[in-house]
This record gives sequence, structure tokens and C-alpha cells, in this order.
Amino acid sequence: VVAEVVGVGRTPASLELARRCGLVDVVTEDVTAGVREAELVVLAVPVGGIPAAVARVASAVGPGCIVTDVGSVKEPILAAGDAAFPDGRFVAGHPIAGMEMSGPAAARADLFQGANWILTPSPRTARGAMHQVASLGTAVGARIVEMTPAWHDDVFATVSHLPHLVAFALMDAVLATERGDERVRYAAGGLRDFTRVAGSDPEMWRDIFLMNRAPTLRVLAVYQDTLNALATAIRTGDGDAVIARLRRAKRAREEMLHRT
Amino acid sequence: VVAEVVGVGRTPASLELARRCGLVDVVTEDVTAGVREAELVVLAVPVGGIPAAVARVASAVGPGCIVTDVGSVKEPILAAGDAAFPDGRFVAGHPIAGMEMSGPAAARADLFQGANWILTPSPRTARGAMHQVASLGTAVGARIVEMTPAWHDDVFATVSHLPHLVAFALMDAVLATERGDERVRYAAGGLRDFTRVAGSDPEMWRDIFLMNRAPTLRVLAVYQDTLNALATAIRTGDGDAVIARLRRAKRAREEMLHRT
Repeated sequence: VVAEVVGVGRTPASLELARRCGLVDVVTEDVTAGVREAELVVLAVPVGGIPAAVARVASAVGPGCIVTDVGSVKEPILAAGDAAFPDGRFVAGHPIAGMEMSGPAAARADLFQGANWILTPSPRTARGAMHQVASLGTAVGARIVEMTPAWHDDVFATVSHLPHLVAFALMDAVLATERGDERVRYAAGGLRDFTRVAGSDPEMWRDIFLMNRAPTLRVLAVYQDTLNALATAIRTGDGDAVIARLRRAKRAREEMLHRT
Repeated sequence: VVAEVVGVGRTPASLELARRCGLVDVVTEDVTAGVREAELVVLAVPVGGIPAAVARVASAVGPGCIVTDVGSVKEPILAAGDAAFPDGRFVAGHPIAGMEMSGPAAARADLFQGANWILTPSPRTARGAMHQVASLGTAVGARIVEMTPAWHDDVFATVSHLPHLVAFALMDAVLATERGDERVRYAAGGLRDFTRVAGSDPEMWRDIFLMNRAPTLRVLAVYQDTLNALATAIRTGDGDAVIARLRRAKRAREEMLHRT
């Protein structure tokens, strides 16, 4: 049971909306004042800002306070968290419940119902702190999944960061073609499926790509290989090789829909 | 006003369903018998089969019959159509109203309402035949758009064929990573947006890629350039270059949503 939820933010209008919707009990723009009495702090800021926010929170909270985050890159954030909390009170987390909307108006009581809430402890992370954060996750209906931060960053480079990179590059390429602005008028299926992803926030994604640089570039290399192989099969008119690759892609998709 | 619609197909069950739904008046598996008395033949078969179907229909129809198609590649089909009908009675067409479903059960009375129905005449195409096919399109609520077959194939290589190529290669790459089958379990947004596209029929897409080979490989080269430039910006940690490209992609997407 949580006695009081304090909302700390930069935008008075968002804070006020969150309070009026009943998402938080009190609000403040002052981080130090907001976290001073906290038993658990959840950092939900863009990933690029989390290392600085962890350090700032560490200097303000009491000695028993547990701190967690919801960022989509884990190794660099965990390193910053361990440095700020050498006694292991920082728990690196990533609930998988994103939507393209943001802000308090996008809140939903069932957002985490059935979602995976990933925790990536380091050898330093305190087991008690882990359990506290896991309790928060299960209380809102999520399933707690533990993995190493390195594996987390590889997995999300694959299923999230690479697809975003591909979608951004594709939209960019379409307009870079000759008379690209006329071509996009005829976009029906196909290109349209990429638009939600390519509409994501550029600042947020710059931070994710730069913070998860090595894993993202590794899976990008695998993707470039499969793309080149498919292109070669098309160029040489090798219909059997083309269809073998398309069938494998379709199977991968079915495997994915089946497993999730 | 159409007096009678004859459904010609290979699958008795589909033909019977189409007849019972009222999509066609009579059905047959015999192409020659089905088209013999026709005034207008609409070829709706996978693109790879259209050149052969055009030739077969040409040998069966009467001297006044007009023939059109709905394939998503136009230059090679128009060449086959002009060869089969030297007097210009073949009209190459492409109504943009695709869905991922197929067969008579996916029929909808409003499918073409407000859709672009592209016609790509050659110098040989008879204007009277063009008008007949355009009347069919406008009768079902479509907007007729005329363009050259070469421009059509460039446009659809860009807004449809390349996005499918990219989605197929991405799904293939995901499973090609180490422990890829475990990674896909965590697919939330991002990868999921690509799954409809990558679930498309492999045979159909092999034919499209091979028939529209040159335009598809041309836009693929543009895409590979933008992808490489974005990857280089990430690799060198050039945040300004990354965000400039992501913003341009987001603008391209907004331009697309605005124009269509």
C-alpha cells in the first residue's frame, strides 16, 4: 500500500493535470523537496537525462530510499545508478508498455496489465530493493522478468531500436528520391505501416541510439547483411532464393506473434 | 450498367462463395468459355501470371472486347498487353485499395470508394478503351489517375515495394541474431508495426520484386545511403546529425499523412 504519491516534473500544467486526474496526490517542480521523504523514487524521464537525474536524486533522498527507472537502455543507466548508490539501492528497470502517446492524459489504469516489467540487477544491486520494485510491478499487473543489462540492451536493440532506425531511414529515403513529395501521395499499405514508428520523438530516439550505440550497430550489421542478400537475389533474378528469404521472414513473424 | 458478371477462377469453392455473395452472376473454371462473350475482362491474378493470362484471354475474346488488369507493376504488363492487343484494347490499371486479406469473403462494396485507380496508357492504348475502364473505376467510387508506366513503377517501388523489402529483411534479420527466437518474445511496438507487411504472401512478393526489379533496386540504393548516413552519425556519436535526420524523417511522415 502506498500512502502518498508525489509528482515531480518541469511542466506546471502537466503536474496539475496529473493531480486532478488522481494520478498523484501532491505535485512539485522542486526535485530535492519532492524526493526528500520518499521511500521509493521512480525515474520516468528521457533516457539521456537519467544518469544526471540519478545523481541529483541520490544527493537529496534519505538513506533508506530505493530508486528505480523505466528507461529503455540499461547498461549505462545501471552504471550511473551503481555509482550514485554504492550500497545497491538503485534498481534498473524497463516496463514494456510503451505507446506513441505521452503525458498524464495518456495514463491508463490497465497500462501494465500483463506487460513484461524487466529488471536488470548488477552484482551490487540489493535483493531487498529488487523485491520492492518487483512488488510495484506486480501490484499494477505486470510480470517481472529478470535479465542481465547486456542481454536487455541486445534484445531491445533488436526488437525496438533497429526497427525505429529502419523506419526513420526509410521515411527519410522516400523524400530523398526524385519528386519524392509526389510519390508519397500514393502511399497506401506498406509505407503507411512505418509511419507510427517514424513519428516518434526525435530527441528521445537520438538519446536511445547514442546510449545503446554498440548493440544497435551490431544488429544493424546483421540486418544490412540480410537486406544485401535479398537485394542480390532480386538483382540476379534468383526467384528461389527470394522466396526462401520471404518465407523465412514470414515464419519469423508468425513465431513472434505466437510467442508474445 | 453491367448486364452480367462472369467469375472465372481456379478454385470451385471460391467461385461458389463469390456467386452466393452476389459478387458475380455466373461462374466457370474455363477461361475460354468465361471470356468468349465478354465486353470487358478484368484480370485480377498475381502479377507474375498476368502476361500469360493476357495472351490466353486475347486468343479467346471477341474483336470488340476490352481487357484491363489490376497488377501493382505496370511496364512489363503493359508490354505484354500491347503485344497481345496491337489495336490498343489492353488498358493497364492499378486500383490502390489493397488489404492483407484476399478471396471473395474479403469483398466490400465500398472498397474503391475514394481510392486512386491508376491507369498507365501506352501510345498504342485506344482512348475509347481507356474511357471504358475509367467508367468502371468511377462507377465504384474511385478517382482515376493517369500516369506513365515508368513513373508508376518508380512510385510503387518507393511507397510499397521497398517498404515490403525492408520489412521482410528486418524480420529475417531478427531471427538471424544470436538467440533471436528469445529476443522476439519482447517485441512490443517497433517490430510489431512491421508484422502486417512481413506477413504478406511470399509468392506474390517474389513476383513483384522480380517484375519491378530495376525501380526497386534504384530506391533501395537511396535507402541504403540514408541508412548508412544515419548509422555513421550514431557510430561517431554525432548527436546533431542524428537528430537532423530523425527530424527530417518525421517531417516526411507528416507530409505523407497530410497529402494523402
